[in-house]
Amino acid sequence: MSKFFASKYKELEAYTPGEQPRDMKYIKLNTNESPYPPSKETIDAVKSENALMLNLYPDPTCAELKKVLGERFSVNAENVFVSNGSDDILNFAFMAFGENGVVFPDISYGFYEVFSELHNLPYKKIPLGDNLEIRAEDYKNAGAMIAIANPNAPTGLLLTLDEIREILTTNPDNIVLIDEAYIDFGGKSSASLLSEFENLLVVQTFSKSRSLAGARLGFALAGSEIIADLEKIKYSTNPYSINRLTLAAGIAAVESDKYYMDNAGEIIKTREYTKNELLKLGFSVTDSYANFLFAKKEGIDGKIFYEELRKRGVLVRHFDKERIKDYNRITIGNPKEMGTFIEVTKTILQEASK
Amino acid sequence: MSKFFASKYKELEAYTPGEQPRDMKYIKLNTNESPYPPSKETIDAVKSENALMLNLYPDPTCAELKKVLGERFSVNAENVFVSNGSDDILNFAFMAFGENGVVFPDISYGFYEVFSELHNLPYKKIPLGDNLEIRAEDYKNAGAMIAIANPNAPTGLLLTLDEIREILTTNPDNIVLIDEAYIDFGGKSSASLLSEFENLLVVQTFSKSRSLAGARLGFALAGSEIIADLEKIKYSTNPYSINRLTLAAGIAAVESDKYYMDNAGEIIKTREYTKNELLKLGFSVTDSYANFLFAKKEGIDGKIFYEELRKRGVLVRHFDKERIKDYNRITIGNPKEMGTFIEVTKTILQEASK
Repeated sequence: MSKFFASKYKELEAYTPGEQPRDMKYIKLNTNESPYPPSKETIDAVKSENALMLNLYPDPTCAELKKVLGERFSVNAENVFVSNGSDDILNFAFMAFGENGVVFPDISYGFYEVFSELHNLPYKKIPLGDNLEIRAEDYKNAGAMIAIANPNAPTGLLLTLDEIREILTTNPDNIVLIDEAYIDFGGKSSASLLSEFENLLVVQTFSKSRSLAGARLGFALAGSEIIADLEKIKYSTNPYSINRLTLAAGIAAVESDKYYMDNAGEIIKTREYTKNELLKLGFSVTDSYANFLFAKKEGIDGKIFYEELRKRGVLVRHFDKERIKDYNRITIGNPKEMGTFIEVTKTILQEASK
Repeated sequence: MSKFFASKYKELEAYTPGEQPRDMKYIKLNTNESPYPPSKETIDAVKSENALMLNLYPDPTCAELKKVLGERFSVNAENVFVSNGSDDILNFAFMAFGENGVVFPDISYGFYEVFSELHNLPYKKIPLGDNLEIRAEDYKNAGAMIAIANPNAPTGLLLTLDEIREILTTNPDNIVLIDEAYIDFGGKSSASLLSEFENLLVVQTFSKSRSLAGARLGFALAGSEIIADLEKIKYSTNPYSINRLTLAAGIAAVESDKYYMDNAGEIIKTREYTKNELLKLGFSVTDSYANFLFAKKEGIDGKIFYEELRKRGVLVRHFDKERIKDYNRITIGNPKEMGTFIEVTKTILQEASK
């Protein structure tokens, strides 16, 4: 830290992204990337003459991308916000709507706490229930902005639309942010509730089901005034945050939606296969609606299982938090990768039982 | 504005980017883009197999890009910060180092005031001198972080390294940020002073001389602790803000530096040609070291000149600020574009004199 650094940020603990090691080739099941490449249309769009006119600024209004996303979700373009990944949008939303406080689950996406600390927002973490579930009743009349990942990470557990409706109904004076990074793997989007609730802000990403983690693109759906507020923050920080290549990729990705949703279906199948195999091996596995599983096995330390996998070339994600330290979060790769993961897991269990 | 919007941002005035109209085809001399495309190497890098593996996250540490930039500027990789355009870096720098206040010229890049307002930093605008110049003596012992664009925008006027040295010497307890977006068009970078001054932060961009406005990439050079502070802010907002395509483009652009610096040389030639033509037509033109000119002509209202050009398909940038409202900022395009600009200007002058 330099002597010039602002005192208010001195204690700040930044987010820790999943590791991206380069010491050897791993089966990477640690950052919830898609095992499938982008569609041919998406790649062609990136290589197009217009996208590659890189000496020219991108369209800061992202008009075309907003238009196609609006059509995809049956809202108007003015109900769509886009920015440099959903992290960027979450950050803006915490700035714009968290002034009077934020509540979120104690075990969820780590960035909620980072944003609250960064912007000095009063915040409260609400413990998950006995089965690691988000209890909708805990968020009634919260008196503050609410941020909920649905499905939640790293548990994969899903709230129903009725539960979300209950939260929205009892918090009319605060934004309810539903972070749907993983919604395409079996959940139902709250976007269908937008016409009913003016306090709803739905955030999604192109990083998971749309195979564009490497392009950095997220979007939000909400009432037009909420979108205008987010635009004001964006235009006060970095108006051109989405580049020409990513804009082109995003538009083409929406236009080849079926390809990506079919892939999400494949990932669901592979998840259920992997889950069954883990259950057969005696693991406890949460009922995940995401592109990852959250699993533990009695008698095997979570950190040690992570390390044993890593030694054998399989990367998963382990969190040191007390309540979930026995678990590991395992991204769903392609069937072959998950077959290898299961084989390696069997080897580890056999060696442990010797 | 929604009823949920944070009260502290209600009065915020966002930055206004240069217009990107789509009603007709313009000669765009309004946003300081390069008229030259990226190098073949840069385009090839964007199209490379590795860049297009978009289902995978980019390297958040940007290790390779930092390495080549370090080599280019004779510093270590730990002295290099990269992020999503130099606006992004300026924003982080204001957050990280502006807590006790910021001073900057009253006529300069509009974002300095926006960032100060956004982060509620005390700030002071120091008037330019009689000839629109930044007077180094006004920044002695400022008692606050200093932000200076060198060359300044929209004037194009340059401080010498001796003047910058004077500012650095008299402000040992505060960051002196030198925003060198336009340094490659005839100026000398303060980067050569880094080994002498621990309070120096140099910010540059790939958007101007490197023809990558459409890819969004900026970088900063400073002591390693200052860089670590900026990384902490980045990792607390959006760690993956540079995507795979832009990373690849940036690395290739540094590796084809000569192409870009040759182009900058061409732009300087075209600037001097255009300046001479304007002088012949009776304009006053500042002594610009940037890829734009700042010009006015007695008897012609700046706003009207802007509008007359626009009607004829030539876009320049006009600022409504009282002291510079007679001027227009004219980006240097290619020789043909500037020939057209001069011809159109002659027509406007002839019609005005009728």
